[in-house]
Amino acid sequence: MTRHRYDCHVRFSDVDVYGHVNNVKYFEFYQEARLAFLSSLGRDPEDADSGLVVARIDVDYRRPILFRPEPYAVETWVSRVGTSSFGLQCEIRDGDEVYSRAKAVMVSFDMAAQRSRPLSNAERARLAAVVEPGE
Amino acid sequence: MTRHRYDCHVRFSDVDVYGHVNNVKYFEFYQEARLAFLSSLGRDPEDADSGLVVARIDVDYRRPILFRPEPYAVETWVSRVGTSSFGLQCEIRDGDEVYSRAKAVMVSFDMAAQRSRPLSNAERARLAAVVEPGE
Amino acid sequence: MTRHRYDCHVRFSDVDVYGHVNNVKYFEFYQEARLAFLSSLGRDPEDADSGLVVARIDVDYRRPILFRPEPYAVETWVSRVGTSSFGLQCEIRDGDEVYSRAKAVMVSFDMAAQRSRPLSNAERARLAAVVEPGE
Amino acid sequence: MTRHRYDCHVRFSDVDVYGHVNNVKYFEFYQEARLAFLSSLGRDPEDADSGLVVARIDVDYRRPILFRPEPYAVETWVSRVGTSSFGLQCEIRDGDEVYSRAKAVMVSFDMAAQRSRPLSNAERARLAAVVEPGE
Repeated sequence: MTRHRYDCHVRFSDVDVYGHVNNVKYFEFYQEARLAFLSSLGRDPEDADSGLVVARIDVDYRRPILFRPEPYAVETWVSRVGTSSFGLQCEIRDGDEVYSRAKAVMVSFDMAAQRSRPLSNAERARLAAVVEPGE
Repeated sequence: MTRHRYDCHVRFSDVDVYGHVNNVKYFEFYQEARLAFLSSLGRDPEDADSGLVVARIDVDYRRPILFRPEPYAVETWVSRVGTSSFGLQCEIRDGDEVYSRAKAVMVSFDMAAQRSRPLSNAERARLAAVVEPGE
Repeated sequence: MTRHRYDCHVRFSDVDVYGHVNNVKYFEFYQEARLAFLSSLGRDPEDADSGLVVARIDVDYRRPILFRPEPYAVETWVSRVGTSSFGLQCEIRDGDEVYSRAKAVMVSFDMAAQRSRPLSNAERARLAAVVEPGE
Repeated sequence: MTRHRYDCHVRFSDVDVYGHVNNVKYFEFYQEARLAFLSSLGRDPEDADSGLVVARIDVDYRRPILFRPEPYAVETWVSRVGTSSFGLQCEIRDGDEVYSRAKAVMVSFDMAAQRSRPLSNAERARLAAVVEPGE
């Protein structure tokens, strides 16, 4: 089992004038799920993104997400491990129903030097342990 | 037991540059809790506020709320039932620790006529059943 | 002229399912205006709140705010200068029309000691120069 | 001149614990710019998205966006006009400096039937008038 599951609780504030969770909020859901996932790999939640930057995110919208008390599942997994970057994939789902899919490119970053840096061996090992190669 | 409890899941997006949940987000937490409470009294979550408007909210800040996986409890209760309005009180807490307290004045509103209207007998009965008079 | 004016640009994301700017967003507007005001008194925008905490905010809602390209004016002024705290008042308006009024209690805070501290003479002087005592 | 320019005013609330505008907010900026752009083509701002859904957005992050009083420019243009969909491209910039680029696929949608529908001739004409074909 290599996919991480985050239970996303929709807020009334996420809903726009059309009665659906606004497009923008999908990225917030993916961000919350990603931070929980990275934290589960052995980082502190507060700086789960420190030393990592999001270089790119692609999001497909498939079905509207509605306000309801029950959470939606956001699954996140590692799809690729490179030299100084890695790929994440994510889905917002409810059982077999997929509401949205996303791919993100995460880059390992030297904050002091303000440039990318190679992933450490420990980082690569943590990521490689849960990789699920895909398209 | 007249207090309603809403489990508020803090998001990374709620946190500001000082590392605390931003002041503004407390009102979002209170709103989510209020809608869940009103819904529990017999309204549909989607239009829990239809026919009700918030006329006033007073919020006291006591302690910073931090990002963490465990939810905070937001308790909401009815503190007063009037002719065309009622009072709500709310607390964000963690066991005995109170992070913030709020009072809201809710006004029953005739959306078509765009003015306040008396609470119906059914509304008054639902509210009176859970009132916990306070300061 | 002691009132500070902040032009608040409403976003589509501020609007809720009822087609109005959501209640919660009024606090965001007040926060943006407050930071701009405090910054105008001689603080850097980025840490305009450092050393100051919001102890309390009371907000009255009067009319719904709608999404539109033209900004709303948020006026902020000092209503009281105390020993270790001061009062702010704010209004969201459009010409003579007032959409919402707010009062905030700001407390001077020693972040290291985690307790309130007296306002410095420089701080008191900056605030006293623009005070407009009110109810 | 086929590019639409939206002046995006950054809010303190957009900034995360790292002192940068949070990744998620870029999508909010793109959304605000897109709605203003579509509105400028002859739609009412309030339902600028009615009959149009976002099917996909890809965002590249290049440089951090910081909180400041001066707005950032968000440029939006039409990159492709299809049968029932069209492509938008967007950039957040400051003079020659590009902070982020995005591509969106917009699908013309029959809300009643809940399926895509061909763009009307009037829609195609409005879009074709400002198309700037690109990769």
